[in-house]
Amino acid sequence: MKEAAQAIRNASSVVITSHIKPDGDALGSSLALLRIIKALGKKCRVISPSHVPCGFLFMLEYEDEITRYQPERDDRIIEEADLFIILDCSDLSRSGEVGKKMLKFETPIMVIDHHSTNESFGEYNYIIPDASSTGALVMNVMDELAIPLTLSIAIPLYIAIVTDTGDFNYPSTTSRTHEKAARLLEVGVKPYEIFRKISLDRTIDFIRLAGLAIFNVQLAHEQEIAFSVISYDLYRKFTPRIDELVMLPPYLLTIRGVEVGVLFLEFDPGHILVDLRSQGLINVAKLARNLGGGGHSGAAGVRMRGEMPDIVQQVIHAAGERLDRAHRKGADEARRLKILGRT
Amino acid sequence: MKEAAQAIRNASSVVITSHIKPDGDALGSSLALLRIIKALGKKCRVISPSHVPCGFLFMLEYEDEITRYQPERDDRIIEEADLFIILDCSDLSRSGEVGKKMLKFETPIMVIDHHSTNESFGEYNYIIPDASSTGALVMNVMDELAIPLTLSIAIPLYIAIVTDTGDFNYPSTTSRTHEKAARLLEVGVKPYEIFRKISLDRTIDFIRLAGLAIFNVQLAHEQEIAFSVISYDLYRKFTPRIDELVMLPPYLLTIRGVEVGVLFLEFDPGHILVDLRSQGLINVAKLARNLGGGGHSGAAGVRMRGEMPDIVQQVIHAAGERLDRAHRKGADEARRLKILGRT
Repeated sequence: MKEAAQAIRNASSVVITSHIKPDGDALGSSLALLRIIKALGKKCRVISPSHVPCGFLFMLEYEDEITRYQPERDDRIIEEADLFIILDCSDLSRSGEVGKKMLKFETPIMVIDHHSTNESFGEYNYIIPDASSTGALVMNVMDELAIPLTLSIAIPLYIAIVTDTGDFNYPSTTSRTHEKAARLLEVGVKPYEIFRKISLDRTIDFIRLAGLAIFNVQLAHEQEIAFSVISYDLYRKFTPRIDELVMLPPYLLTIRGVEVGVLFLEFDPGHILVDLRSQGLINVAKLARNLGGGGHSGAAGVRMRGEMPDIVQQVIHAAGERLDRAHRKGADEARRLKILGRT
Repeated sequence: MKEAAQAIRNASSVVITSHIKPDGDALGSSLALLRIIKALGKKCRVISPSHVPCGFLFMLEYEDEITRYQPERDDRIIEEADLFIILDCSDLSRSGEVGKKMLKFETPIMVIDHHSTNESFGEYNYIIPDASSTGALVMNVMDELAIPLTLSIAIPLYIAIVTDTGDFNYPSTTSRTHEKAARLLEVGVKPYEIFRKISLDRTIDFIRLAGLAIFNVQLAHEQEIAFSVISYDLYRKFTPRIDELVMLPPYLLTIRGVEVGVLFLEFDPGHILVDLRSQGLINVAKLARNLGGGGHSGAAGVRMRGEMPDIVQQVIHAAGERLDRAHRKGADEARRLKILGRT
């Protein structure tokens, strides 16, 4: 980490990127690091492979603070940078077109991440698999660089931590996580204001569709799998923001005894998003990977093509087989936490 | 607070109670204080005016650690105690039959609470209105008594704090709250284990009814009020645990622009539970009090008798009037937080 901090000190122009479909940690850690590097008096840009979801736009202090990659505007900036920093990405392909572009230069890449599957693909790698979030690691870099914690840096750090720990509930939450949160609140972060902006801002379309999806929940594999199906017709009728739908699969896990929750969403005719959650008995990242997707041990996804009934059958069957195997191995709490710890 | 600690030191037999329909803070702070006082080598009992909801039974290390008041068994224990401690109760009537019984004796009463409406009705009063939870205050008492923090004390303290701060999101959450949480995790509290037991244990009946109630949400008063109606027929069809239904009203507030969420539940023919939530523009405790109920500024309730359409109309009308008044006064963020701070 000292090496990473030194590389930042030596750089004069930095480009930061993160992963496609950015979440609170990707956006929060990028924005915090941008502000930290600017506080060092250096040139810095965040170029994202995807748009900032509108639910997170409030984080930005000016409109262009995080921009979606546009070759005609950004290629020169990428070419002129002397350091690339890739945040919260287990491999370069997750950073989409920006990562591809970066590979065309000899510019050193720094990786800051907490995914256990990260293969340290940078010249500099600060990878702590059991960290609560990439934001927590950026906070360590800030301390190493002796940049004082301001509210402007604290807000995105808090968003990174609070979203990636599921409100301080996931197994990666430790006393260090709370100590970090205490420091962030100390400089003026108001948790309820952020909670309102992140969690209390759903569209009525989302709420209605969520209600139907929750009502239509079905149980399979001796009630260990809860799943819900949203057909294209239903999705089209309500048209919620797709970034809101991430709210739904965790809800399926709240049913007593359910180990795996699956949402099947036909977002285009014949195109199905399969969103998987696990309580830790099985690693759904492995399941998703076998089907062509990816993710975390407790939350993963895959896009599939075909008829809904076939895909439901295929995914439920694959999950059921993994559950059977897990039961045969025995499933104590320590093992669950170990699986869920593999973010 | 030093005075309260001294009174505990001087006591030899203590009875602790809390409020009817106990929540995580009532149960967690009672249980933690019981274990603290027992660590001092004193006799202590928790006598609750209500049952422990089954979702919280996992907190108990033995079945009788918190018991519901039974006169034939408990009256002698109450009579022989030399100190009563009433936790998380803004007035004695909230502690039901146990409080009534206590009033019959000259035994000194100690009040530990964080409700701003608390009128300091004890001989000893340790009341901090902006504390995150009564559990946080019990933790301070523990420190004052120099009782070492063990896992057995930390678990109920954590449950008190995490439930009463809405997973560290409500305005009462400060850096001190996170510092306390950090200490609790330090001695071995596993947040995810507690999250699973508290939040991931819904019945399928609750999930289906919740889905319907969410789907059926209606908007009123220029979309500032979101409400959902569960008729007796519907409630009877699904029969969820009534303590699970507390999950539902917060969900109504997640809709963008909604200031007040109301769930109307007909739990017996003609008997309607009205559960109110506010984003801070209005104080729903006042609204509930006018209708014969009570609660917090952000979460309150009242039981009413009559026909559903009349009651819906009456409550929506009263909430709408208060919203209009609040708008006329102006409603900045600081004012909202002040209202919500009035726990």
